[in-house]
Amino acid sequence: MPMAKPYPPVVLRERLRYQGYKYVFLGQRLRFPNQTEGDREYIVHPGGAVVVPVTAAGTFLCIRQYRFAVGDYIYEFPAGTLEPGEAPAETVKRELQEETGWQAHRWDDLGQFYLAPGYSDEIMYAYLARDLEPLPEKPPGDEDEDIQVVELTTAELRHKALHTLELDAKSVTCFYRALAFLGQL
Amino acid sequence: MPMAKPYPPVVLRERLRYQGYKYVFLGQRLRFPNQTEGDREYIVHPGGAVVVPVTAAGTFLCIRQYRFAVGDYIYEFPAGTLEPGEAPAETVKRELQEETGWQAHRWDDLGQFYLAPGYSDEIMYAYLARDLEPLPEKPPGDEDEDIQVVELTTAELRHKALHTLELDAKSVTCFYRALAFLGQL
Repeated sequence: MPMAKPYPPVVLRERLRYQGYKYVFLGQRLRFPNQTEGDREYIVHPGGAVVVPVTAAGTFLCIRQYRFAVGDYIYEFPAGTLEPGEAPAETVKRELQEETGWQAHRWDDLGQFYLAPGYSDEIMYAYLARDLEPLPEKPPGDEDEDIQVVELTTAELRHKALHTLELDAKSVTCFYRALAFLGQL
Repeated sequence: MPMAKPYPPVVLRERLRYQGYKYVFLGQRLRFPNQTEGDREYIVHPGGAVVVPVTAAGTFLCIRQYRFAVGDYIYEFPAGTLEPGEAPAETVKRELQEETGWQAHRWDDLGQFYLAPGYSDEIMYAYLARDLEPLPEKPPGDEDEDIQVVELTTAELRHKALHTLELDAKSVTCFYRALAFLGQL
């Protein structure tokens, strides 16, 4: 739940710095509570949704994909950006199907968190998915997708979360939320 | 440790979309392994460093600050952006002092993780700080800083990490790394 905001800064001016194909980069001139002024720039993001899919055996479905921004292959839980007018619960269902070829019959809400509040307004909506079933046919993904579906154990994910670059911060956060929800933390 | 990169996409063109005061927003035209082409845009970030300061009593020093991008006050572990030529271990020492007014005499490395690999190349360097001591005088911070130092228990942080928006993904990630390092996970 968002906290009270007793002393927010005042936005004096706002300027579109760059209209990207997926994100907007926004600049703001602010007056802070102590009456000084300053400039801030950040990404305006429609929000994201991420799902932790747990199999009947208690393993986790992850995807391994190339992330061009970091120039590396990493493991992540299936996730995506909210389409206009799309509810987060719909986004994750779509992304689970598109990225893994599986669907889930049991969904639970793992709450929300901020991903990178220093330079993005993105809120991440997290879900747990169980009662998994493979789709008769995997839906077509993006043209550039190079995604591998990988089944990982709790121990493997713990190791990646705690000691490697292989699991990003959103995946670590919702992994621990899932473990807590499942009574395994 | 970064993974092997068997099939990275080829960067065909690169264009500066916007030069921000702190970050660069970069556009790239890529050729993917399946020979299709696509455009990608992301923030080029100098890297960040974050520190989990643990007191002799086993509590955690956090900061509570207003994050303009999300329009909310949240709790975070002290963190900051690497200055040019600055080693991450120096960044965290500086940020700990500037943001909390404390210094630490015992440091441990909690490794690295990617924060938001969907749209930023930021690597976050995480540290544990112990043997804390208040500085004789708190160093001056940024002009706009509205930072409150807060001491939180493990139980309070667990609750915030798992059930609220009050702790961002980088703080959740390094909180669990710290607990594991301390044998409390």
